[in-house]
Amino acid sequence: MKKFLNTAESFLSDSLAGFAAAHPDLVVDADNRVVTRARGAVPKKVGLVSGGGSGHEPLHSGFVGAGMLDAACPGEVFTSPVPDQVLAAVRAVDGGAGTVLVVKNYTGDVMNFQLAAELADDDGLRVETVLVDDDVAVQDSTFTAGRRGTGATLLVEKITGAAAARGDGLGAVADLGRRVNAASRSFAVALTSCTTPGSGRPGFDLPDDEIEVGVGIHGEPGRRREKLRPAREIAADMVRAVLEDRPLSSGEEAIVIVNGLGATPLSELYLVFGEVSSLLAERGIRIARNLVGNYVTSLDMAGCSVTVCAADQEFLDLWDAPVNTPALRWGC
Amino acid sequence: MKKFLNTAESFLSDSLAGFAAAHPDLVVDADNRVVTRARGAVPKKVGLVSGGGSGHEPLHSGFVGAGMLDAACPGEVFTSPVPDQVLAAVRAVDGGAGTVLVVKNYTGDVMNFQLAAELADDDGLRVETVLVDDDVAVQDSTFTAGRRGTGATLLVEKITGAAAARGDGLGAVADLGRRVNAASRSFAVALTSCTTPGSGRPGFDLPDDEIEVGVGIHGEPGRRREKLRPAREIAADMVRAVLEDRPLSSGEEAIVIVNGLGATPLSELYLVFGEVSSLLAERGIRIARNLVGNYVTSLDMAGCSVTVCAADQEFLDLWDAPVNTPALRWGC
Repeated sequence: MKKFLNTAESFLSDSLAGFAAAHPDLVVDADNRVVTRARGAVPKKVGLVSGGGSGHEPLHSGFVGAGMLDAACPGEVFTSPVPDQVLAAVRAVDGGAGTVLVVKNYTGDVMNFQLAAELADDDGLRVETVLVDDDVAVQDSTFTAGRRGTGATLLVEKITGAAAARGDGLGAVADLGRRVNAASRSFAVALTSCTTPGSGRPGFDLPDDEIEVGVGIHGEPGRRREKLRPAREIAADMVRAVLEDRPLSSGEEAIVIVNGLGATPLSELYLVFGEVSSLLAERGIRIARNLVGNYVTSLDMAGCSVTVCAADQEFLDLWDAPVNTPALRWGC
Repeated sequence: MKKFLNTAESFLSDSLAGFAAAHPDLVVDADNRVVTRARGAVPKKVGLVSGGGSGHEPLHSGFVGAGMLDAACPGEVFTSPVPDQVLAAVRAVDGGAGTVLVVKNYTGDVMNFQLAAELADDDGLRVETVLVDDDVAVQDSTFTAGRRGTGATLLVEKITGAAAARGDGLGAVADLGRRVNAASRSFAVALTSCTTPGSGRPGFDLPDDEIEVGVGIHGEPGRRREKLRPAREIAADMVRAVLEDRPLSSGEEAIVIVNGLGATPLSELYLVFGEVSSLLAERGIRIARNLVGNYVTSLDMAGCSVTVCAADQEFLDLWDAPVNTPALRWGC
C-alpha cells in the first residue's frame, strides 16, 4: 500500500484535520465527527444532513455549505457513521423546520440513520429520510439490500439543498429528493480495485487486461468481468444500462454526471463524457447540465460512473441556484 | 495500460471533443487546438494565453474563462504546442492591448512560445512572456534547462488573469506574473509513475515500497528515491525544501496549494494539507488562502506537490477576484 498517511488508525482524523484547516468557513466537530456550516442552524430553514463511510470524498463533507448540505457525518472508511453522530448533526442544524436525511442505500447506513431518526424523534425533532438507490448494475449487492446509492446522491443533495435554501417545507424538500432519486440512474466501471488504509491491500483482484462492469463504490462486484475495450464501447454499455432502466424520450432533457472514482485523470473523464454526449444526442436526448470530475469516489480506484437524471425545469432551476461548498461552487 | 480511450492516436482529440461538449460556454477550435472564451477577444483588455503538453488537466484548458486565461493551447500528451497553434491563440484573443504568454520552463515550450511571439510580432501584435520556474527540486532536468515550471503556473494564471480583467496594461500584467513566479516555490513527491497513452507503459519503475522525492510533472527524476514514510515526514521534507529556497518569516502570509498529481484521492491530499498547515503554523507563517485538489497533474501519477507563494495584499486581492472557469470558480 502506498498512500499519504501517518497510521491507518489516524487516517480519518488526520484527513479531517486537513479538511478543517483548508476550510475555515466550515466547522469540523472532531469529537462527534460532524462537519457543519460555520453559522450553525438557520432559523426556519429545513436542515439537510447526509453522511456515510469515508473514502468517497468530496462526498459528503465537500458538499457542506450554502445551497447544499447543512451537515455531513463521515464514518470510518467504507463504514457507516454511528447513530449518535447523525443525531449530533441533526441537533446542530435543526432550525425549527425539521431535517431531511439523505441516505445512500447500504444496509448499515439505512439502519444507523433510522436509529438516529428515532433518537431525534425522541428529542421532539422532526426528521424525514430520502433514500438514494440509483445504481442499476445489480439488484442486491455486498452491503446492500436493493440497489446501491451512488452518483445520484450529489444530485439529490444539490437540488434539495437549493429547495431548502429557498424556504420549502420539510415534506416538500423530502418529496423533491425522492423525485430526483426516482429520475436518476447510474452505472460504474472499474479499471482497478481500491485499497483501504485499514486493509492495506486491494479489495479485489482484477487482471491487467480486464475491467469490472457495474462495480459499486466500495468495489462490490458488478455484472461481469470483461476485457478492456475502446472507451466508446464501454460508454455505450453504460448508457444502455442506464436508459434501459429509465428510458428517456427524444426531446427530453437530462443532467449528466461523468464521475471519476478517484484515480482516473480528468482527460479520460472528458473523453468518456464526449462519448456519452454523442450517444445521448443520437437518441435526441439533450444534456441540459453536466458535471465531469471526481465527486463520488472510491479511494484510489480507477474507473468512472455515468449518472443520468431526467430533469424537469424545477430540477434545472434548483441545480442552477447558487451553491458555495468546497467541491461545488457557482453563483455565489 | 488500462485507460478510457479509443486509440492512443485519437486520445487528445477525443478528450478535447468531450471538453467542448461539457463546456458550451467555451470554444474549442479543433483544427488549431486552441480553447478560447466564447466571446473572443475583449477590446482593450490584455490577452492571457498559456499552453503546454496535455496530460496536466485541468491545466491549462480548465483555466480558460472570465478572470483567468483567454486561451489555452494543448499540445499532444507531454509535448509542446507548436508555434502556429500559439500564434492562432494570440490572434484570437488580442483585443488591441497586447497579450501575455504564460510559459512553463521546459525547453520545447520555451522555444515554441518564443517562435510564436516572433510570428506575432511580425503581425504587429505586442506580446510579453512570463516564464514559470517554481520547482526547487533540481536545477536542470529532463526537458528543462533551469528549474521546471509546475504548481505556480496556476497562481500566475489566476493572479495575472484578475489583473488583466481589471484593466492593467501589458507591461504591468507581465511584471505582476513575474513577481508571482518569483514569490512561489514548489516541490513534488510521486508514489507511482504515470503512463502516456502513446507509450502504454509507465514512464519509470518505482518499487512497491519507494517514492520519488522531487519528481517532475512528466515523471522526470527528482532528488532521490527513498522508502515510503509517514505523510508527516514527507510533508516536512517538502515544506523544508520550499522554504530553504525562499524563506518566509514569522508573520508573513502565503497562498498554499496542495496539488494532486492525478491518481491520489482527495482524502490523502487533505491529510497532506493538514501536515503542511501545522508545519507552517509552527514557523508563524499564516496560510491566507489555499487550494487542495487536482490542478496541475501528471496523467495517472499518484503523488502530490506543495506550492507556497509569499503573498502580499495585491496578490490576495487578485486571488479573491471573481473567476469563472471549468476548474476554478468563485465570486461569479
